[in-house]
Amino acid sequence: MQRFALIGAGFIGSVHAGNLAAHPDIDFSVVYDVSTERASAIAERYGARVAASLAEALDPAAVDAVFIASSTDTHADTLRAAVDAGLAVLCEKPIDLELARAREVVSYAEARGARVMMDFNRRFDPDHAELKRIVDAGGIGTIELIQITCRGPVVPPLEYVKVSGGQMRDQNVHFFDLARWIAGADPVEVFAAGSALAEPRLKEYDDVDTSVCVLKLPDGALVQIDANRRTGYGYDERLEVLGSQALVESQRQGARRVTHYTADGVAQSPLHAGWFERMQPTYARALDHFVTLLETGAPIEPGLSDGLKAQAIAEAATRSLHTGVSEKIVY
Amino acid sequence: MQRFALIGAGFIGSVHAGNLAAHPDIDFSVVYDVSTERASAIAERYGARVAASLAEALDPAAVDAVFIASSTDTHADTLRAAVDAGLAVLCEKPIDLELARAREVVSYAEARGARVMMDFNRRFDPDHAELKRIVDAGGIGTIELIQITCRGPVVPPLEYVKVSGGQMRDQNVHFFDLARWIAGADPVEVFAAGSALAEPRLKEYDDVDTSVCVLKLPDGALVQIDANRRTGYGYDERLEVLGSQALVESQRQGARRVTHYTADGVAQSPLHAGWFERMQPTYARALDHFVTLLETGAPIEPGLSDGLKAQAIAEAATRSLHTGVSEKIVY
Amino acid sequence: MQRFALIGAGFIGSVHAGNLAAHPDIDFSVVYDVSTERASAIAERYGARVAASLAEALDPAAVDAVFIASSTDTHADTLRAAVDAGLAVLCEKPIDLELARAREVVSYAEARGARVMMDFNRRFDPDHAELKRIVDAGGIGTIELIQITCRGPVVPPLEYVKVSGGQMRDQNVHFFDLARWIAGADPVEVFAAGSALAEPRLKEYDDVDTSVCVLKLPDGALVQIDANRRTGYGYDERLEVLGSQALVESQRQGARRVTHYTADGVAQSPLHAGWFERMQPTYARALDHFVTLLETGAPIEPGLSDGLKAQAIAEAATRSLHTGVSEKIVY
Amino acid sequence: MQRFALIGAGFIGSVHAGNLAAHPDIDFSVVYDVSTERASAIAERYGARVAASLAEALDPAAVDAVFIASSTDTHADTLRAAVDAGLAVLCEKPIDLELARAREVVSYAEARGARVMMDFNRRFDPDHAELKRIVDAGGIGTIELIQITCRGPVVPPLEYVKVSGGQMRDQNVHFFDLARWIAGADPVEVFAAGSALAEPRLKEYDDVDTSVCVLKLPDGALVQIDANRRTGYGYDERLEVLGSQALVESQRQGARRVTHYTADGVAQSPLHAGWFERMQPTYARALDHFVTLLETGAPIEPGLSDGLKAQAIAEAATRSLHTGVSEKIVY
Repeated sequence: MQRFALIGAGFIGSVHAGNLAAHPDIDFSVVYDVSTERASAIAERYGARVAASLAEALDPAAVDAVFIASSTDTHADTLRAAVDAGLAVLCEKPIDLELARAREVVSYAEARGARVMMDFNRRFDPDHAELKRIVDAGGIGTIELIQITCRGPVVPPLEYVKVSGGQMRDQNVHFFDLARWIAGADPVEVFAAGSALAEPRLKEYDDVDTSVCVLKLPDGALVQIDANRRTGYGYDERLEVLGSQALVESQRQGARRVTHYTADGVAQSPLHAGWFERMQPTYARALDHFVTLLETGAPIEPGLSDGLKAQAIAEAATRSLHTGVSEKIVY
Repeated sequence: MQRFALIGAGFIGSVHAGNLAAHPDIDFSVVYDVSTERASAIAERYGARVAASLAEALDPAAVDAVFIASSTDTHADTLRAAVDAGLAVLCEKPIDLELARAREVVSYAEARGARVMMDFNRRFDPDHAELKRIVDAGGIGTIELIQITCRGPVVPPLEYVKVSGGQMRDQNVHFFDLARWIAGADPVEVFAAGSALAEPRLKEYDDVDTSVCVLKLPDGALVQIDANRRTGYGYDERLEVLGSQALVESQRQGARRVTHYTADGVAQSPLHAGWFERMQPTYARALDHFVTLLETGAPIEPGLSDGLKAQAIAEAATRSLHTGVSEKIVY
Repeated sequence: MQRFALIGAGFIGSVHAGNLAAHPDIDFSVVYDVSTERASAIAERYGARVAASLAEALDPAAVDAVFIASSTDTHADTLRAAVDAGLAVLCEKPIDLELARAREVVSYAEARGARVMMDFNRRFDPDHAELKRIVDAGGIGTIELIQITCRGPVVPPLEYVKVSGGQMRDQNVHFFDLARWIAGADPVEVFAAGSALAEPRLKEYDDVDTSVCVLKLPDGALVQIDANRRTGYGYDERLEVLGSQALVESQRQGARRVTHYTADGVAQSPLHAGWFERMQPTYARALDHFVTLLETGAPIEPGLSDGLKAQAIAEAATRSLHTGVSEKIVY
Repeated sequence: MQRFALIGAGFIGSVHAGNLAAHPDIDFSVVYDVSTERASAIAERYGARVAASLAEALDPAAVDAVFIASSTDTHADTLRAAVDAGLAVLCEKPIDLELARAREVVSYAEARGARVMMDFNRRFDPDHAELKRIVDAGGIGTIELIQITCRGPVVPPLEYVKVSGGQMRDQNVHFFDLARWIAGADPVEVFAAGSALAEPRLKEYDDVDTSVCVLKLPDGALVQIDANRRTGYGYDERLEVLGSQALVESQRQGARRVTHYTADGVAQSPLHAGWFERMQPTYARALDHFVTLLETGAPIEPGLSDGLKAQAIAEAATRSLHTGVSEKIVY
């Protein structure tokens, strides 16, 4: 039984709260949020306790692990505090928007042997995982091209976008991680091109909403990622890995499998409405994975270095958006 | 908050137990089974109480509703006892394998105004429900042909089959109900042809494992149901409704949406391994529907008469298997 | 080089004319039709000669083979004349609407060792043929259930329907043949149920437009055929063969593979508009097969006995429509 | 009736010969090839005449139009000669591998008002054309991203590759044209990254076999093209256009629509074996389009300037492969 503290009781925090409460090997003990009201709502619903302070929440006598799901700017400090308390940590990405600061806290944590898992939930999508299984089993030969599509239905509010670090750091970072995970290798350079087509005001924040990235892996294999923030047709995520012998694809998905044949055409139900409808089940699976790692003592994966590396790629991609040059990635 | 007793702690009982425990508006109070050991296992896991007798389990002071998930031969008596206790009932099909006896207890329950829902879970499959929604919204015009495929991967154990009432009463009864539900009408006659191909020993029990039924609806529209007990390729369930203007289909489903393109062909992951993998989510949805009916006081559907009617079709189909004649259905 | 006479210059005759002209090993020599005008149009377009009479068209000095594509009531007489002339024959189905008469002419032809192929074009659809190949290669184990769907977009004109022999003899006969071909066995009995839903006036001609047939094969395997004459969504033909180990399907087909993802759903282009759009390529393939048989001297298949057997099933099915009983098939 | 000369009797020439012979409004008059033997084989098969020289083949008294399907290095000279003879021209791409030389001959032809169509056959694929129709009809809103995949099964022989101009000029040029055609606009810059993964010896010729290109359109919309020369799973071509409101896709295609459901998975037949199996029908359609343009006098499209522009993009892409910089395209 792992006793968990949850830090952060906003939207994603409440999703995690539900999963913490439902897991048979987790004791969801305590929740902390800057808003006591939000923390109380969750505590009441799931029978957890509200902590009066972060320090109280991280009390190693009361909890074994902490789930960091608070706002991005608090991740690094909370992580450091959790490490000091000797707790295992499951941390929402990113470690910190500023890569230098992220590196600092990672060094701190690693020096202390902290067990920290980055919540890169897409690795836990059953279809993406099946694709990875086929690749690892030699089902496509050697990887030559990874193609990733990630398109969301609605541009997030400008207030969010302006502090998000931009499309590369906020949206693509998930797929930079997926690419590394699938390839089992670190890309060496990245080119990015993008435009603000869905929301032209993004230009004021030096941001884009429609982009294509091209990454080169050490052996010359390529990764292509196209990302978009406003589709009109739902949430569209799709992976394809071309190997020397075959191809494997994790398809774009609709929620329903109902087909309507009319004179106008053959219609399936729409794609999932948004990323959450598509990806919700991955959070419980990621959490379950973390618990298994804690209980077996197995090495943590994806770990802090995975978090750093995905961010490093995002940094280089952000530079490339402006230079128009394929940029070396500095890990 | 609805306080529930669960009667039956076998495989399907334990599935229902999980759903009872997880539902926010249900207090899973008590469980009863002829095996105290089985009842205790469930009680412990979900924090319910073990009843020492059926009577104790059905105490109206302690529970509002009862979920009958015990063995088929106990359904009728338990139903009658629950009605006497004034409890609402969610009942696994069938009411009783013997139609006359089923009719008797239904009369008894109806005379006392009992609120009883039959757990025809397939009505609660989201895809089947979406098909029904399209039909009801006029999306295909008038129904002309309903085509249903139901094929399971493995012939059930002979011990089970021999007391199951045969393929029509055990397997097809679900689809007789689906057909009535989709059509909004009661079939008037049914023809059935079948063979024991997967398990020839079924002939000793006068049973079949591969069959086709043809039902006629009052307006001349047709229903075709092909059923099979051993596929070799997983669980295969599929509905199609042809209307005067269009067609709608609830497709056969695989668990994964991963495609592997090789020199040999283009491969998707297999279909679901069995009916349970395919249909598991429907049980929680059916339960949730029942709770909503209890809380709103809305008419119960599917009710006891739906249970009786599906059985009446199964009776006529069983007769037809032997006569080779399209048999009138006597409701 | 095979010299061909074409008998019949109507719609289907002109389709065959195009294929005769395009085939590298065929010399399309002569065409005959009761309408000289129609015959001339085709002769001119493809550089053939118009025969003044049937006898002239069947002159064994000038042609090696004859393609009978005239109206149904002339098939038997033309076939007999061609046999007398010692010509090979490719004959549109049916041999004659009246089964007794068809049997007579078949006996006549067989006694004279005539080489006659029935133009059951669906056997030459590349997808149906691939399905058959997989079945024959043991890809599904032993056949247990064949499911066939055949639905056309428009009820044919009443003038045609009334002399067509009814849905079983006119439409289903193709699929009775397909079922025999796939199974490699002759069904022993057939049940049919049907209604006139799309065109109620069909009742006056004792005909139906929506039907389901169930056939039993000698080993107990089943065949299910649902047929319809008015879909609203294009031409829908689909085969499925369930075996003891696996399933194989020749899918319903749209002409285009373009997908349109919108907020309303995921739309493919419609199915083929009609049977001709779907099946046109099969005619050239059937013709090519016939030429190969002629040139290699291989046994003719599908032959006259295949034509008779499909008709015999249609007879029994037509009887069953009225009796509601599974009828023995008399070959 | 348009009288045609065919120049070139190699593989693709013989494909065009078949289409010329089959077209009802074309008189396939004469064929010329440096190899008289090859020319004679075609002439005999289709009833055309062999020309003793290019000049004889281009005799304006005998022909109205010429189809240039000879080797790439002869295109420019033949084109010039055909223009001098006042003939209409249907020309295989490219005009000339050397862009400067191509520009020269285009100026020459345009100054003389020559009617020349480039045989960009993919524009005539019915599915690609349907995608274009949907885009033009406003079915996706404003174009924001075009994604093109083009992957062939086998690296062409090194002897061919080494004189082909490289992957951008030889393979991608088709898709640069498709992108321009779909977008209705000329890309302003292009980035390309590539590796020789399938055939490492390509490095000796400064060529690649696996590449990703990113093009920017004047309004900021993006085009992404991934190309590959050796798949292991057949020929894979696929277009996707993301608009401000919806998405449209012309899917990768298998030849058959047969599905085999087994315990191992759900398998479709493989993709087309090669580009020719997939694209063969487009040649007849392109030819038919050309004839229609000739007969109606409508403006020629795709014309010489389309040929030049696709080549100009290929030039810039080839540069970018080496510089790692997004290169301006000079038209």
